[in-house]
Amino acid sequence: MDPMFLMNNLWVMIAFILVILMQGGFILLEAGSTRMKNAGHIAGKTVFTLGIASLVFWAVGYGFIYGESLGGIIGFSDFFFGDATTMFDGLAGSVDFIFQLAFAAIALTIAFGGFAERAKLSAYIVFALLFSAVVYPVVAHWIWGGGWISELGKQDFAGSTVVHLTGAMAAMAATILLKPRIGKFNKDGSPNELAGHNQVFTALGVLLLWVGWFGFNAGSTFGVDDAFFGFVALNTQLAAAGGAVAALLIAWAVIGKPDVPTMLNGALAGLVAITASCAFVDPWAAVIIGIIGGLIVFGSMKLVEKLGIDDPIFAISVHGAAGIWGTLSTGFFATPALAELNGGRAGLFYGGGLTQLGVQAISVVACGLFAFVAAYVLLLITKGITGGLRVSEEEEIMGLDISEHGSYGYPEALKAAESNNSESKTGA
Amino acid sequence: MDPMFLMNNLWVMIAFILVILMQGGFILLEAGSTRMKNAGHIAGKTVFTLGIASLVFWAVGYGFIYGESLGGIIGFSDFFFGDATTMFDGLAGSVDFIFQLAFAAIALTIAFGGFAERAKLSAYIVFALLFSAVVYPVVAHWIWGGGWISELGKQDFAGSTVVHLTGAMAAMAATILLKPRIGKFNKDGSPNELAGHNQVFTALGVLLLWVGWFGFNAGSTFGVDDAFFGFVALNTQLAAAGGAVAALLIAWAVIGKPDVPTMLNGALAGLVAITASCAFVDPWAAVIIGIIGGLIVFGSMKLVEKLGIDDPIFAISVHGAAGIWGTLSTGFFATPALAELNGGRAGLFYGGGLTQLGVQAISVVACGLFAFVAAYVLLLITKGITGGLRVSEEEEIMGLDISEHGSYGYPEALKAAESNNSESKTGA
Amino acid sequence: MDPMFLMNNLWVMIAFILVILMQGGFILLEAGSTRMKNAGHIAGKTVFTLGIASLVFWAVGYGFIYGESLGGIIGFSDFFFGDATTMFDGLAGSVDFIFQLAFAAIALTIAFGGFAERAKLSAYIVFALLFSAVVYPVVAHWIWGGGWISELGKQDFAGSTVVHLTGAMAAMAATILLKPRIGKFNKDGSPNELAGHNQVFTALGVLLLWVGWFGFNAGSTFGVDDAFFGFVALNTQLAAAGGAVAALLIAWAVIGKPDVPTMLNGALAGLVAITASCAFVDPWAAVIIGIIGGLIVFGSMKLVEKLGIDDPIFAISVHGAAGIWGTLSTGFFATPALAELNGGRAGLFYGGGLTQLGVQAISVVACGLFAFVAAYVLLLITKGITGGLRVSEEEEIMGLDISEHGSYGYPEALKAAESNNSESKTGA
Repeated sequence: MDPMFLMNNLWVMIAFILVILMQGGFILLEAGSTRMKNAGHIAGKTVFTLGIASLVFWAVGYGFIYGESLGGIIGFSDFFFGDATTMFDGLAGSVDFIFQLAFAAIALTIAFGGFAERAKLSAYIVFALLFSAVVYPVVAHWIWGGGWISELGKQDFAGSTVVHLTGAMAAMAATILLKPRIGKFNKDGSPNELAGHNQVFTALGVLLLWVGWFGFNAGSTFGVDDAFFGFVALNTQLAAAGGAVAALLIAWAVIGKPDVPTMLNGALAGLVAITASCAFVDPWAAVIIGIIGGLIVFGSMKLVEKLGIDDPIFAISVHGAAGIWGTLSTGFFATPALAELNGGRAGLFYGGGLTQLGVQAISVVACGLFAFVAAYVLLLITKGITGGLRVSEEEEIMGLDISEHGSYGYPEALKAAESNNSESKTGA
Repeated sequence: MDPMFLMNNLWVMIAFILVILMQGGFILLEAGSTRMKNAGHIAGKTVFTLGIASLVFWAVGYGFIYGESLGGIIGFSDFFFGDATTMFDGLAGSVDFIFQLAFAAIALTIAFGGFAERAKLSAYIVFALLFSAVVYPVVAHWIWGGGWISELGKQDFAGSTVVHLTGAMAAMAATILLKPRIGKFNKDGSPNELAGHNQVFTALGVLLLWVGWFGFNAGSTFGVDDAFFGFVALNTQLAAAGGAVAALLIAWAVIGKPDVPTMLNGALAGLVAITASCAFVDPWAAVIIGIIGGLIVFGSMKLVEKLGIDDPIFAISVHGAAGIWGTLSTGFFATPALAELNGGRAGLFYGGGLTQLGVQAISVVACGLFAFVAAYVLLLITKGITGGLRVSEEEEIMGLDISEHGSYGYPEALKAAESNNSESKTGA
Repeated sequence: MDPMFLMNNLWVMIAFILVILMQGGFILLEAGSTRMKNAGHIAGKTVFTLGIASLVFWAVGYGFIYGESLGGIIGFSDFFFGDATTMFDGLAGSVDFIFQLAFAAIALTIAFGGFAERAKLSAYIVFALLFSAVVYPVVAHWIWGGGWISELGKQDFAGSTVVHLTGAMAAMAATILLKPRIGKFNKDGSPNELAGHNQVFTALGVLLLWVGWFGFNAGSTFGVDDAFFGFVALNTQLAAAGGAVAALLIAWAVIGKPDVPTMLNGALAGLVAITASCAFVDPWAAVIIGIIGGLIVFGSMKLVEKLGIDDPIFAISVHGAAGIWGTLSTGFFATPALAELNGGRAGLFYGGGLTQLGVQAISVVACGLFAFVAAYVLLLITKGITGGLRVSEEEEIMGLDISEHGSYGYPEALKAAESNNSESKTGA
C-alpha cells in the first residue's frame, strides 16, 4: 500500500488519540473548578457523555455532517457507520470517522460546562442525545461538511467556531435556562466566588488539554504533507504561551493578585483562539493572537459575571469569546502564502481587505446564533422530558454526588467535614 | 531502509508508550477506589511493580513466551534480551520486545487488584517476581507464543484472555487467600461498602486507560497495513461507549442510583470485552459487545459480593467476567471477511457454527484454570517466604501507607483527621 | 515528498508532544511533594513558566543555541523564529524548533524545583526570562549547538547534562540563596521532614514523566532510521525499572521503611541517568546504570540534607547527582558498535580507555560550574529587580496560594482546617 497514504492515516490516528486525551483534561478542569460535593458527578459524567456522544455520532451524527448534503443545510446518508472501506479526506474511512467523532465529543463536553453543579443527571443524558444528534452536526455540516458556509470560503482550520463556539453557545443557553447556582449572586446582584476545590486538578487539566490540542490542531492537517503539522504545532504552542502570560499579567494589573484560574483560562483562550488560524498565520501573529485571547478571556469573565450570568467552568469566555476572536483573527492575520497553501484568502493586514474578515464574521454570527437558539429549544424539550432541568434546592446544597449518584466522590473528606459540623453544632 | 518496515515499528512504538500510560490509569483507578490511608502505597507500588515486571520480563519472561517452544507448553531461549538485531512479528526486536513487556506489566497490575488494602509489601515483591516469571509467560506462550492453544486457532486479538483473564484469575486467587478486608462483610455475611476515597481519580484513571487502550488494541495490529488500526480503534471506542452507557442504565434501573464506580467499570468492561474481538467484528457488533460487557460487569460485581468475596478494585468482574465474555464474543460475532483477514474463523452468527466458539471456550477454561491454580500455588509459596501475605489487623486499620512505608500518602489530610478524632475524644 | 523525511518529522513531532506531557508530570510531582497551602501556586506556575520559556525560546533562545556560533561560546542568529522552510537536523525547521523548545522548558521547570514553597511569584517571572535566555542556551550551544564541548566529542544523547544537570545546578543555586524553608532544619541543624501532601500525585507524576521520557530519549534519535528509537526506549525502560527497584530496596535496608518518595525518585534517577547513555549502551548496562542511579539518589538525598541544604523537590539529587552519573556512565559502558553508530567512542569497560570518560568528566565540571555560577549571578540580579527572592515569613506560613495568588488551591479543605483550628483554640 502507498506509504504516504498509510502515514497520513497514522498521524490522524495519533491525533484522534490525543483528542480523546483532552477528555481527561476536561475531567480535571471541570472537577477542579467546582466544589467537592459535586466532584465525582462532574468527573463521572464526562465519561458517560463521551459514551453517548460516541454512540450518537456513530448512529446519526457522522451522516448528518458528512452525508449527502440536503441543500447545504444538513447531510443525510452514511448512518450507523460500518463500512471500513470508505475513504474520506484521503484517509481510511475508519480513521477519518474516529477523528471526527472525537471532535463531536469535545463540543458536547464544552456545552456541559454550563450544566455544572445543578443540572439533573437525566438532563445530561437527554441533552447529550439531542446536542450530538442535532446542534453539532448542523454547524459541522455548514463549515466542514460542504454546507453553505464552507461555500463562502470560511477559514476555520481546526474548529474555533465548529467546536468551541458551538459548545460555548450551548453552555450559555444552558446556564441561562438553569439560572445561577445557589449563592453565586447576592440579592443586590453582586457576585460571590464559588471557588473550585482543586487547582492542581485545574492546572493539570489545562496541561492535558494543551497536550491534546496538538492532535486537535496539528491533526487537522489530515496528513503529513510537508510536515506542516509542525508549523501548526508551533503556532499552537506560542499562542497558548501568549495567552497564559497575558492573562497572568492582566489579572495582576487589574485585580492585584494573579489568580491561578484566570491564568489557566488564559492558556486555554490562547489555544481556542489559534484553533481557527493555526494554519494561516505566522508565528509572531500566533503570539499576538494568543496574547489577545488571554486578555479577552479576562475581560469576558468579568463581563459575564457582571451580566448576572453564572458560568461555572468559564465556557462562555474561554470557548465562546476566545472562539470568536480566533475565528476573526485569521481575517486579520492570514498571510497570502499560507492562505494559498490551505485554500483561503489573505487577511486584512496583508492586503486581503475585508472580504475574509466578513466571511469570518458572518460565520460567527450564523453559527453562534444557530447553536444558541437550537440548544435553547432543545433544552426546553429536555426540560419537558425530564420534568425540569435542575435538581431541587435541597439536592443542590447536598451536592450532586449524593443526589444524583447516591455516594460522595470524596466520602472520607466529606464525612469528616460533616461530622465536624455536627460536632461544632453540638458543641454550640 | 524500507519505509513500510519503519512505519510498522513507529506505530508499535507509539502503541507501547500508550500501554505504559495505562499504568497511570491504574494508579488512579486503584488509588481512587481505595481509602486514603492506603493511597500512597497503592499508587507507589504500581510504579515499583512496573519496575519488577520489566526486569523479570527482560531476564526470563520474554524467553519463556517467545523462546523456542518446549512441546507447546513454554518457550525456552532468548533470556536477558539484548540483541537489537533480532526481528519478531516483522518488527525490530527491541520494538516488539518493549511492546510485549508493557502487556506483561499490565497483567501483573491487574493481578494486584486482589491484594489491595491488606497485603504486605514483601508479598507484592515476591509475587511480582513469581507471576511475571511463571504465570503470565505460560498463558502468553500458549496463545501468542506458538503454544498449544494458538494451534487450535484461538482468536484473542489483543489479550482479553492472555492479559485480562490471566490477571483477573490471579487477583481472584489472591483475594480469596488474603480474605476480605476488615469491615467488608458483617457477621451475617452481608456486605458493607468500603467506598474508594476519590472518584475524580477513578474517572480520570478510566479515561487514561481508555486512551491507552488504543495502543493496547490497535497496536496489536503490529503494523500499519491497510490502516487497519483505525478500524480496531473504532470498535474499541464504540465498545467502551456501549459499556459505560449500559452500566449507567442498569445501575439506575436496578439499584435506583447510577453510581459512578459502576458506570466507570462499565466503560472498562466494554474495553476488556472488545480486546479479543476488536479485529474480528463489525462496529454494530462492537456496540453490542460493549453493552453486554457493561451489563455483565454489573451482575458480576453483585454476584462476587454475594459469594462473600471482597474484590476491592473489581478486577474479577472487570477483567475476569468481561474478559471471558470478550473472548467468547468473537465466537459469536466474527465476520467471515474479518476472520479471513486476521486468520481466524467466522462466528456462530455468521454461519461459522460452534467451532470457533468451542475453541474460545476451551481457551477460557484452560487459561483461566491454569492462571488461578498457578497463582494460588505461587501465593502459598509467597506466603511461606514472607511469613504471611497479610499485614496485621492493627496495621490494616492504621493503613498501609504508615505500616508498609512509614509515612502517610496524605499526611496533612490524615493528621488533621487524627487530631480531630483525638480532640473529640478528649472533648467527650 | 520523501516518505523517510516525513516519517522522521512525524516521530519527532510525537516526541515533542510527549516532552510537553512531561510538564504534566512535573505539575504532579512538585505539587505532590509540597504542602497543601502551596499546591495551587506550584501547579499553576508550571503552566505560566512553560509559557514564558516558550516565548523566550522563540524570541532568542533558539538563536543563542543554534544560531551561528560566536567562537564556540554562543550562537547568534535566527531570532524570532518564523521561517518554516528552514531545515535542521534533517528535519523541517518547525518540527526541530518545537522539539528543542520543549527541552528548554523542561530545564527551566527542573530549576524551579529549588524555588519551591518560598520564592516570590515575581522572582519566578524574572528568573524564567533570564534562565531561558542565558543559562540554558549557553550550555545547549556548547554541547548540542556546535560549541566547544561538542568539538571534544561529548556523548550526551538526550541531555543528562544539557537539561538535567543544568536545571539541577540552577535549582541548587536557588535553594542555597533562598535558604531553607521555615521548619526544615532545627536549631541544631537536624532536619525535619516537610512531607509532601499527596503521594498519589507524586506517583502519577513520575509515571507521566516516565511516559514522556520515551519522547525525550527515543525522540533524540531525530528520526526513524533502523527503528533505533526502540532500542533507546528499551534501555530507558530498563533503567527506570532498575532505579525504582534499587531505591526501594536501599531505603528498606538503610532506614527500615521503603518510603514512597524515595522509590519514586529512584525511578526518576534511573531515567535521568540513562538519558545521556541510552543510545550507547547495551540493555544489561542500562539495568546497571539505572540501579546505580537509584542508589545514588538515595545517598545524595541524605547527603544534601546533612549539608543543611533544603532541596524540596529533590532536584539536586534526582537531576544533578543522577545526571552526573548518567553523563559519566557512557564513559564506562559505551560499546564500540553503538558508539560508532552514534558517533562516539567506546567506554572504559570496552577498551576505550579513559578518553571518553575524561571528556564526559570535563563536560560535567564545565557545564555544572557554569550553570551554577550563571544561575547564582542571575538570581542576585533577579533579587535586585524583585526586591528580594523570598516571600515574608508571614506569607510563607500562610502559604503561597494565598500570598501570591490571592486564593487557596484547595479552598474547601484548607478552610475546614482553619475553622477546626480556630474552634479548638476557642475551645481551649
